[in-house]
Amino acid sequence: VAGTARASSGADRQLLSDLEDALGRRRVLTDPEVCAGYTRDWTGRYVGSAAAVVRPERVEQVQAVVEVAARHGAALICQGGNTGLVGGSVPRPAGALDQPQIVCGMSGMCAVEDVDPAGRLLCAGAGVTLSAAQAAAGRAGFHLGIDLSSRGSATLGGMAATNAGGMQMLRFGGMRARVAGIEAVLADGSIVSRLSGLAKDNVGWDPAALFVGSEGTLAVITRVMVRLEPLPAHRVTALVALASVDAALELLAGPVAALPSLEAAELTLEDGMRLVAGEFDLPPPVGLESGAAGRGGRAWLTLEAAGPYDPTAELAAAVDHPFVLGAAVASDANGRARLWAYRERHTEAVSRLGVPHKLDVSVTRSRLGELVGLLPERVAAAAPGARLVMWGHAADGNVHVNVVGPPPDDDGVDDAVLRLVAELGGSISAEHGVGVARRRWLRLVRSEGDLQLMARVKAALDPGGMLNPGVLEPLP
Amino acid sequence: VAGTARASSGADRQLLSDLEDALGRRRVLTDPEVCAGYTRDWTGRYVGSAAAVVRPERVEQVQAVVEVAARHGAALICQGGNTGLVGGSVPRPAGALDQPQIVCGMSGMCAVEDVDPAGRLLCAGAGVTLSAAQAAAGRAGFHLGIDLSSRGSATLGGMAATNAGGMQMLRFGGMRARVAGIEAVLADGSIVSRLSGLAKDNVGWDPAALFVGSEGTLAVITRVMVRLEPLPAHRVTALVALASVDAALELLAGPVAALPSLEAAELTLEDGMRLVAGEFDLPPPVGLESGAAGRGGRAWLTLEAAGPYDPTAELAAAVDHPFVLGAAVASDANGRARLWAYRERHTEAVSRLGVPHKLDVSVTRSRLGELVGLLPERVAAAAPGARLVMWGHAADGNVHVNVVGPPPDDDGVDDAVLRLVAELGGSISAEHGVGVARRRWLRLVRSEGDLQLMARVKAALDPGGMLNPGVLEPLP
Repeated sequence: VAGTARASSGADRQLLSDLEDALGRRRVLTDPEVCAGYTRDWTGRYVGSAAAVVRPERVEQVQAVVEVAARHGAALICQGGNTGLVGGSVPRPAGALDQPQIVCGMSGMCAVEDVDPAGRLLCAGAGVTLSAAQAAAGRAGFHLGIDLSSRGSATLGGMAATNAGGMQMLRFGGMRARVAGIEAVLADGSIVSRLSGLAKDNVGWDPAALFVGSEGTLAVITRVMVRLEPLPAHRVTALVALASVDAALELLAGPVAALPSLEAAELTLEDGMRLVAGEFDLPPPVGLESGAAGRGGRAWLTLEAAGPYDPTAELAAAVDHPFVLGAAVASDANGRARLWAYRERHTEAVSRLGVPHKLDVSVTRSRLGELVGLLPERVAAAAPGARLVMWGHAADGNVHVNVVGPPPDDDGVDDAVLRLVAELGGSISAEHGVGVARRRWLRLVRSEGDLQLMARVKAALDPGGMLNPGVLEPLP
Repeated sequence: VAGTARASSGADRQLLSDLEDALGRRRVLTDPEVCAGYTRDWTGRYVGSAAAVVRPERVEQVQAVVEVAARHGAALICQGGNTGLVGGSVPRPAGALDQPQIVCGMSGMCAVEDVDPAGRLLCAGAGVTLSAAQAAAGRAGFHLGIDLSSRGSATLGGMAATNAGGMQMLRFGGMRARVAGIEAVLADGSIVSRLSGLAKDNVGWDPAALFVGSEGTLAVITRVMVRLEPLPAHRVTALVALASVDAALELLAGPVAALPSLEAAELTLEDGMRLVAGEFDLPPPVGLESGAAGRGGRAWLTLEAAGPYDPTAELAAAVDHPFVLGAAVASDANGRARLWAYRERHTEAVSRLGVPHKLDVSVTRSRLGELVGLLPERVAAAAPGARLVMWGHAADGNVHVNVVGPPPDDDGVDDAVLRLVAELGGSISAEHGVGVARRRWLRLVRSEGDLQLMARVKAALDPGGMLNPGVLEPLP
């Protein structure tokens, strides 16, 4: 049965038995229902087949898994919180590979090992969830400078492997910037460890920087050290209405961009705002009926600033601009939540329309207006009658493109959107990674030289092709 | 003659001739005096021998140099501004390698190609100096978020290859954080290019992150794209006197650390402050005779904050603390320069005492007090009677250790300092890199697994050992 771990052959039974010998029986999962949770992604779109699911608790056990996998020529698919959207952390379908597949669930490596307030560092097992790390940091007066809505499941190891981004990226950077160190097991069983927590350490290039974003293809990340930021005493949110996306981007490029306290700058559009307000019976957002709408309709920025002093005055001054149709500001938790709801409930509102095609693309900030302007006609051409809803992390040029209408397995509209993005010099995957879902479009945005470099490093570190085979490899 | 390019053999003459055919004669330097500037580092401690010095102006010419070097089995040593301190950008001494050496001076790739205010990006040839890039950014209302005293010579390519740090690293990060993209030529002549300037682009791991800090051993960096920051309207400097290093670090870990506008936090000590004030007839710094000095004498923090609003009040509030013996604050250029002089003139003051042994080490911020406390006794034991002067980038745990007394070729005191740093889990090279100078101590701070990873990636990308051979390799 695809989607469950089963000993389908004598070779697979030997593999299971060797894993049990190496790890102890309780760390080798065999219950089909439990295993199904590891072989299917949370959206249900990616279902694979594994000869075994293991759950190591210490780095030596990860080494043992790697050793057994190498001996059996098996593939090793690492899995953190299984919150990915591109099928990169579940096994490939039965028959897709000529290797047996082992899913290595990292949730057993779940200790927050150290919080260092002076060094502003947190060190934890790769299986620690973002929310557990946030709680440990919070008790010491810090936060991680990164937040995702999947915080309860997403793990630090998975976030590092996929270079997770999120809402606060504008101020604090993505995981590549947040990771201060890493411990990892390579395909030959050797351990690479860079957990000194030094702010400056120019003794060779940085393995952590190489492994971040490698999607489990170069190493098994076993420990992660992340940087911490002091919890701000003050936090203020502003919802600012503008006549058009161009006006929003102009405001963002001006005084708003210069605020050191700015943590978020989220863009929403008139169509999405009307949808959200209607679906959830919210009062119309500020500015919805004010002034004249420009090309493409009105746009909103959800801005958030935070710091050790109250940033309300500087945020208010920065948005005091003739383009602004209206602005609402809140610094209390309830008021802030009310303003954020317009942005945050977009996902849910779109899901009520049907099963959306979800694309996560980016362009440079200077081309964001162009992308948002061109998308409606390209989507209409590829999928006549489809409903397009967009929102995004404006400061990062990142747009979440949602298209409701075409059947799930018709990727014509995906292709049209990704080709437009490539024309504009953008990325076919801003945050979500490549996994198996975006392999078809890899060559749109990566040259032969780029792909060869990735392939050569992959071959040097994993000559047997053990680690997450297929992921990050272009389709022929 | 060591230190000059000369056609010492028929093979070398053929190499020169092939380079001239590939690049044109004027890009192959032959004048011995000109070449000597490329084969000797600026301190005069590292002098090597090159069969040729070339100066390409376009990436195709770099490819041609790589092709000729591969054909002749030659070593290729890339050189930016030749401001390094570890002998990594000049050729090895005559006879040290069994390959002829080519110095590839990058100063011909000197065009600032693009400044994108909306995307906050600058793209330039690898040979563009930091000051030229700063000037171009400044004309558009931006700065690079990185500054070094060698700005007039140091190049963006060299800064990327060595992951340069500097004074503003606390707020804006080092070159690994500043680099938004890179173009590079690999040893096989292929080009890797990641110059899209996207804030988010999760399509595979980031080659730029791999090449930063690789010291010319993995690729020839030909173009660099760096992030820009808006020029602040206000800038304020505070010189704050404290009873001890521990008090300074406690102040820094508290409210000061939480200031989003903080750009620099430099540490100086009583011995160095007395030396600087005496050598240059400066008025005694604030607090020099106030209160009681703690263990190891008084300490000063030079703090700088900048932003779109005036940060004076928040900086003053953050340093209003019982540990503070006194503070001087200035926001005008002259006043700020007067306060900075105490920190900046340390280098010159030490040079007046003799030729110093210079070590650039780091520990985590939580161990900085311990390092500064232990160094005097370790230095005294290794070099009795020597004079130790230290200062550093306090927020990064980075200490510049200067020892005057032991002869230049006696590295006993270097060894003692680096062993102490390794005991404390620190780095033997915080900013300056490994080059050839720190190879002897590589194994102190890198495990066999770490070194093997570096060696394997090196072998995959440069199987012939063309690029900067010896650099970053541990001595047996």
